[in-house]
Amino acid sequence: MARQRPGRAKSIGLGILGLGVVGGGVYRALSQKAAVLAERAGGPLTVEAILVRDLKKGRAVQPPPRLLTTDPKDVLGNPRVDVVVELLGGEQPALEYIQEALRSGRHVVTANKDVLAKHGAQLLALGRERDVGLQFEASVGGGIPIIGSLLHDLLANNLTAVYGIINGTTNYILTKMAREGLDFAPALKQAQDLGYAEADPSHDIQGTDAAYKLAILATLAFHTQVRPEDVYREGIERLASRDFRYAQELGYAIKLLAIAKAEEGAIQARVHPVFLPQDYPLAKVDGVFNAVQVEGDLVGPLLFQGQGAGALPTASAVVADIIHAAKDIRQGGPATPLPLLNDSRPVRPMAEVRTRYYLRLSVSDQPGVLAQIAQVLGEQQISIASVIQKEVYEEAQTAELVIMTHKAREDAFQEALRRLALLSVVSEVGNYVRVEG
Amino acid sequence: MARQRPGRAKSIGLGILGLGVVGGGVYRALSQKAAVLAERAGGPLTVEAILVRDLKKGRAVQPPPRLLTTDPKDVLGNPRVDVVVELLGGEQPALEYIQEALRSGRHVVTANKDVLAKHGAQLLALGRERDVGLQFEASVGGGIPIIGSLLHDLLANNLTAVYGIINGTTNYILTKMAREGLDFAPALKQAQDLGYAEADPSHDIQGTDAAYKLAILATLAFHTQVRPEDVYREGIERLASRDFRYAQELGYAIKLLAIAKAEEGAIQARVHPVFLPQDYPLAKVDGVFNAVQVEGDLVGPLLFQGQGAGALPTASAVVADIIHAAKDIRQGGPATPLPLLNDSRPVRPMAEVRTRYYLRLSVSDQPGVLAQIAQVLGEQQISIASVIQKEVYEEAQTAELVIMTHKAREDAFQEALRRLALLSVVSEVGNYVRVEG
Repeated sequence: MARQRPGRAKSIGLGILGLGVVGGGVYRALSQKAAVLAERAGGPLTVEAILVRDLKKGRAVQPPPRLLTTDPKDVLGNPRVDVVVELLGGEQPALEYIQEALRSGRHVVTANKDVLAKHGAQLLALGRERDVGLQFEASVGGGIPIIGSLLHDLLANNLTAVYGIINGTTNYILTKMAREGLDFAPALKQAQDLGYAEADPSHDIQGTDAAYKLAILATLAFHTQVRPEDVYREGIERLASRDFRYAQELGYAIKLLAIAKAEEGAIQARVHPVFLPQDYPLAKVDGVFNAVQVEGDLVGPLLFQGQGAGALPTASAVVADIIHAAKDIRQGGPATPLPLLNDSRPVRPMAEVRTRYYLRLSVSDQPGVLAQIAQVLGEQQISIASVIQKEVYEEAQTAELVIMTHKAREDAFQEALRRLALLSVVSEVGNYVRVEG
Repeated sequence: MARQRPGRAKSIGLGILGLGVVGGGVYRALSQKAAVLAERAGGPLTVEAILVRDLKKGRAVQPPPRLLTTDPKDVLGNPRVDVVVELLGGEQPALEYIQEALRSGRHVVTANKDVLAKHGAQLLALGRERDVGLQFEASVGGGIPIIGSLLHDLLANNLTAVYGIINGTTNYILTKMAREGLDFAPALKQAQDLGYAEADPSHDIQGTDAAYKLAILATLAFHTQVRPEDVYREGIERLASRDFRYAQELGYAIKLLAIAKAEEGAIQARVHPVFLPQDYPLAKVDGVFNAVQVEGDLVGPLLFQGQGAGALPTASAVVADIIHAAKDIRQGGPATPLPLLNDSRPVRPMAEVRTRYYLRLSVSDQPGVLAQIAQVLGEQQISIASVIQKEVYEEAQTAELVIMTHKAREDAFQEALRRLALLSVVSEVGNYVRVEG
């Protein structure tokens, strides 16, 4: 479709799949800003059809009824549609529609992290094959232009690391816990009451959402396919208010960090809570803000920070992608080349990753305890960087120990945890958090 | 030149003007990364000629001598050169060379803020006319992809403000002053000793460098031509260590901020020291880092932070621009459209700008002084938000007053300053700093 009208400044036809929060925001931006967007895109952008589930549903935005349809063919088979804008979310039927659109030579713009994380490599190959664009800036970080930067602006770099705070729900909860001394459960409750967390928040708080997004970022940053299941993930449920108190005393903030690092011949990809030095820019990213830090051999560290969700920031990214597709179509040549995933570094198993650890233990308040603990750690080649005895509970005759380790292998650390739990002087392995920076 | 070989994946020829710090970094990146860059650009990037001042000069990078020339024609008239990479800096002869390159149908990549700030609108029009690209990501913020974001990723937005810490020298000095309680002169001396400030630092410390960069950013953000002379500028020389002490006590950091705001029918464009609330992201950007915050109607606030200067970060931006130009040439269609500057909002004179102010006065330590000061301010419609009497110098019978005002017009504030200086109870108008946020 797209290819057949090169160069002409006639209208570019858009077919939108989905008119929910994001779809509504995109439609509203397209209609309210039609004149200025036409100018910036080199010609009008015309919505030709919108797929909805229910024609009768009341909506905040009200497109002309003739545009609405419940039949995907009215969008995907519409000869006036040059660009399919997929805003349904979820894996199916979105994936199927995107494939059909690309196969028919239509450009695709999508905000769908599930589809991109799971099937991005295959869709990029399909887009290349059909010489059409596949734009997905909104799939990670809302309005933050991180995908465009990875695909275009940072191409001269050998990227060495990507660090992201890319889940607003968990960052809101962690910020609450840090600032108000709350435990996890009440902080989650507050986030739910304010609409920052869903009724079933498991996708967010277990790190799954962040892992999907990290799979996309790591794939683009390292030109190698990183699948969601390659990403190690741990959620924020185990964190207690005292972990925040100790972190603060030790000069750290606690964040749910998505981490991808390029190593010699392998990649690390993991999502879990971390201790971050308080003076690190990412440590200061609070509330529902998202941020991504990229490190490259030329550019050094580069930080992007903004609103990671919401109808308007997401519409900012989706509409920019639409303009990009429209320009590609108008230029008439082949589409802007899609990224090659021609590297194939394996993802290192979490067991082999080396980090530092914060470890909190409840122990008997008696002499010789530390010697036993140090021996268990030493047997696993884990060196202690510092030990602080925190609160002593006299009645229970227990004390709380906070241990900061030097770098150790994850499997060794997990084995040490198992052995520590068996020591009679250890009444509880309270928590552990990996340390970055 | 470029137009004559659409579609083919043959080598793209580069002509580099200048082999100084940036030119050397770019040449080194191009040669050391030739294979991976060829992959990402869709074909080889071949340096065909390099203009230098002195063929014999010793250099850290040593291109084959046959590439070096002192005659600009060997680059600008070279039939194998598709993209001219201008890294001479300064207004002339860079401007002339860029014009010649565009006129001959060659794409141009430049890091030249002087030329862009002063002649950007004209060069963009020339590029449009000849249908060739003009890329200048490195002209502002080193490796931070702020230009690309304004030109592409944020196009859906009506941008309302741009705030930048875009001069590393002054940010280094201000960070030193804040952290170590230094006055301006010793902080500048330290910066010079470490190579962060030039022997003649006036271009940086007087805000001229930042004003040039702001002119470029404001032009792109607001699609209207903002010239360097439209930008109000004040440097950092007047700041004293006590201003930092008081700022800190009041919850502010002091930064040299480049500010462009879109107002009803006009634009503000100014560079001067500001008090910024300590919890603002820009307030935490320290040392030689640069940062730009953009605000749009859809995306909200968006922060970019990274290394604003240096051979490698600048090379990151220049080489990305070269890849972009190479892709445009290979696509064979018209070049990626250059931005239209089709808005024409005037820049509001500084006298009409309204901000809040911090004001430090040395006054007689006697009753009734504040009444006289408040009267002068009141006559100029300046409301006082808070007054704090700071140090008292008993021997001199003077005290230091720190006044924070509500919003007032700049001309009224300047008139008030003149009148305050005439009061017998005011021994010195110590300093004033505008307050943002």
